[in-house]
Amino acid sequence: MIEPFPGQVQGLRSQNRRAILAAIRRLGRTARVDIARETGMSAATVTSITADLVARGLVEEVVDEEARTAGVTRGRPRVLLRIRPDAYLVGGAKISEDHITVTLMDFEGNESHHHVVELRLLDKSPEEVAAHLRRATEAALKLTGRALGDLACLGVGLPGFVEAARGRVWWSPCFRMRDVPFGALLAAAFPFPVFIDNDANLAALAEQWFGYGQGVADFLVVTIEQGVGMGIVLDHRLFRGTRGIGAEFGHVKVERDGALCRCGQRGCLEAYVADYALLREAPMALDPGGPPLAPRAALDALFAAAKAGDPTALSIFDRAGRMFSLGLANLVNIFDPALVIFSGEQMRFDFLYGARVLEQMRGNTLATGRPGPRVRVHKWGDRLWAMGAAALAIDGLTERVLREPPPGEAAEGQGSSPASR
Amino acid sequence: MIEPFPGQVQGLRSQNRRAILAAIRRLGRTARVDIARETGMSAATVTSITADLVARGLVEEVVDEEARTAGVTRGRPRVLLRIRPDAYLVGGAKISEDHITVTLMDFEGNESHHHVVELRLLDKSPEEVAAHLRRATEAALKLTGRALGDLACLGVGLPGFVEAARGRVWWSPCFRMRDVPFGALLAAAFPFPVFIDNDANLAALAEQWFGYGQGVADFLVVTIEQGVGMGIVLDHRLFRGTRGIGAEFGHVKVERDGALCRCGQRGCLEAYVADYALLREAPMALDPGGPPLAPRAALDALFAAAKAGDPTALSIFDRAGRMFSLGLANLVNIFDPALVIFSGEQMRFDFLYGARVLEQMRGNTLATGRPGPRVRVHKWGDRLWAMGAAALAIDGLTERVLREPPPGEAAEGQGSSPASR
Repeated sequence: MIEPFPGQVQGLRSQNRRAILAAIRRLGRTARVDIARETGMSAATVTSITADLVARGLVEEVVDEEARTAGVTRGRPRVLLRIRPDAYLVGGAKISEDHITVTLMDFEGNESHHHVVELRLLDKSPEEVAAHLRRATEAALKLTGRALGDLACLGVGLPGFVEAARGRVWWSPCFRMRDVPFGALLAAAFPFPVFIDNDANLAALAEQWFGYGQGVADFLVVTIEQGVGMGIVLDHRLFRGTRGIGAEFGHVKVERDGALCRCGQRGCLEAYVADYALLREAPMALDPGGPPLAPRAALDALFAAAKAGDPTALSIFDRAGRMFSLGLANLVNIFDPALVIFSGEQMRFDFLYGARVLEQMRGNTLATGRPGPRVRVHKWGDRLWAMGAAALAIDGLTERVLREPPPGEAAEGQGSSPASR
Repeated sequence: MIEPFPGQVQGLRSQNRRAILAAIRRLGRTARVDIARETGMSAATVTSITADLVARGLVEEVVDEEARTAGVTRGRPRVLLRIRPDAYLVGGAKISEDHITVTLMDFEGNESHHHVVELRLLDKSPEEVAAHLRRATEAALKLTGRALGDLACLGVGLPGFVEAARGRVWWSPCFRMRDVPFGALLAAAFPFPVFIDNDANLAALAEQWFGYGQGVADFLVVTIEQGVGMGIVLDHRLFRGTRGIGAEFGHVKVERDGALCRCGQRGCLEAYVADYALLREAPMALDPGGPPLAPRAALDALFAAAKAGDPTALSIFDRAGRMFSLGLANLVNIFDPALVIFSGEQMRFDFLYGARVLEQMRGNTLATGRPGPRVRVHKWGDRLWAMGAAALAIDGLTERVLREPPPGEAAEGQGSSPASR
């Protein structure tokens, strides 16, 4: 089934509950008094709400062993709270044009396994992609001695224009058709809730949960791979745009009547810096007598030529860098972020994420007199995106569990133990 | 004194109180049961918090006269809540390069008077501007038989890079110097709290409180006057950028190495569409033998020439429109807004805000398959900005009052009646 997206349909009533659970996630093992300080709530409220979270099986008490062995506490050992790791097993998957990456995670966010399946998706129908995803998930589970029935939910990220709240994929390079009800297809393919989102949003979640965005209230994540993506975290929450398909940094125009983008328009940032854009110009810089190269090999060769000082290859990266810096400066002018994370795996780190591009970005950023944003480069691959998908799944599942009545008030036949769904 | 900006330093504890007050503001005269529905809080919480708000003098009970006369209610007349208009008298001021507009408002947001003083500010020091603002405020008060001591606080908007939370003006066309501690200067010039902000942010507040943004959770406001401004409302709150100087739409780059902007950089949107940008090219379109024209007269003449079909004048507006549409499309790609409001007073409504520009904007916006944002044009002048400034002042004052201990818990000598500050 498709779930309404976390946080969108909530009143204020359950806000404190969600805030406390989020604080425990952020702080790790933590005492009630620290939760009260972090959230600004009274000790009584924290005690009452954490009791509810423990009863729901989302949080558990642990003895503060460090304090005990250090002899810090006298009398009764200090009790801390943490997210209960074995409350649920969740999955996260990243769908790319040529492979699927699946990760398995406990409810606290510890990864137990990840698994990659290579396949060419573009010839497949959305239904076939859903079936492939199911097989990849089952394979990952099998490798750890488990089956689909052990999984509580799955988060799925894919490139393109994805409306998370409605489970719709308006456009994706993975599909030939537009407006695919992919969330509904996945709901039919799996026996548990599935949440989908744009993959760059999941990169932002991954940075927030596991990367450089931990504990940071507001930051931007920019990724360049086969396309250009952006994730926006505002006040500790993913901002998807008012109507759910914002943050489309790759399709911000950096040149009027510019290069043709795979979205069909001209002058998009993506049309200058994404893999396919570099590949379009690569033949000019590569040996015309050489063998035809597969995309990845051609990119590697282009990169090597630029590294070796080939002026044509350098010109390709130079232009991409100038366009990228212009787009980045516009983001900085609009969001005034304290932190920008470049997240991804490929060689563009050396050119697009280099000092020169950052210098150009600063030159196009509002000269207020204050220091610019901090920029961090985080080099990691598809595993990151899959972990972000698992974080999405944990968020969605949490929201679902918190919407159920508290254990004491459960209607007959509607037990609220973690296992019941 | 400079106040920390509303909402920035708050824990969750007072969130419900602020949410209820905001709901009463949004709904107007409203019953407790409707507040509970609007906020998702329990009836008990609403009753307890509204009692506190009444005790603080911010909210008052009124009898539902409509229901009584219509015979809807039986027995006891239904009691509604509303913001208490005479809780405070607040002021709002907009500082432009050539005039100051002051408005006076009761605490419910009803305007009692507004007043305009023409003067040329650019030759004045920030201290002199503060003194002029004080005189303009006193003049407005005097016209309604009141004095500075009757005012509870003042909101002030001015163009430029304004860091509202710290009261700093990093750059403004109104000042020759950079990094002006204007908030501190105003705090010294007035005997009550003064809040300052970028003027476009105040246009957004004005739309939210009094204009087309009423009751709309998320929208963008774009203004073009002497410069280009943008205000962003997300989830009913003004978004100023993570570090307080975001939303700088006017300095988003629309052309690499493009026209020179008054901020010192090249290719800013403002350098194509703002008054000074149009004036730069206007002489080419106007009668070379004619008398030299003042800026406003030259703009009027340029507009008249375009209206009459002069190709040079049309070319100036055409380019401005194309640049504007490109910048707008980028905003739409990033924020995916449901509503964009063009707010301001001048003739650009006919060209820059016309059907052709909107068509070009759509052509540069992500083709998701969904309908684009709704666009509304709101033609009003400096009074709007001053009203937004008054709204800022009401917000800031409210935050200040809510931070005080509730009436019953007030320390000796710290009465919490509205009059005590």
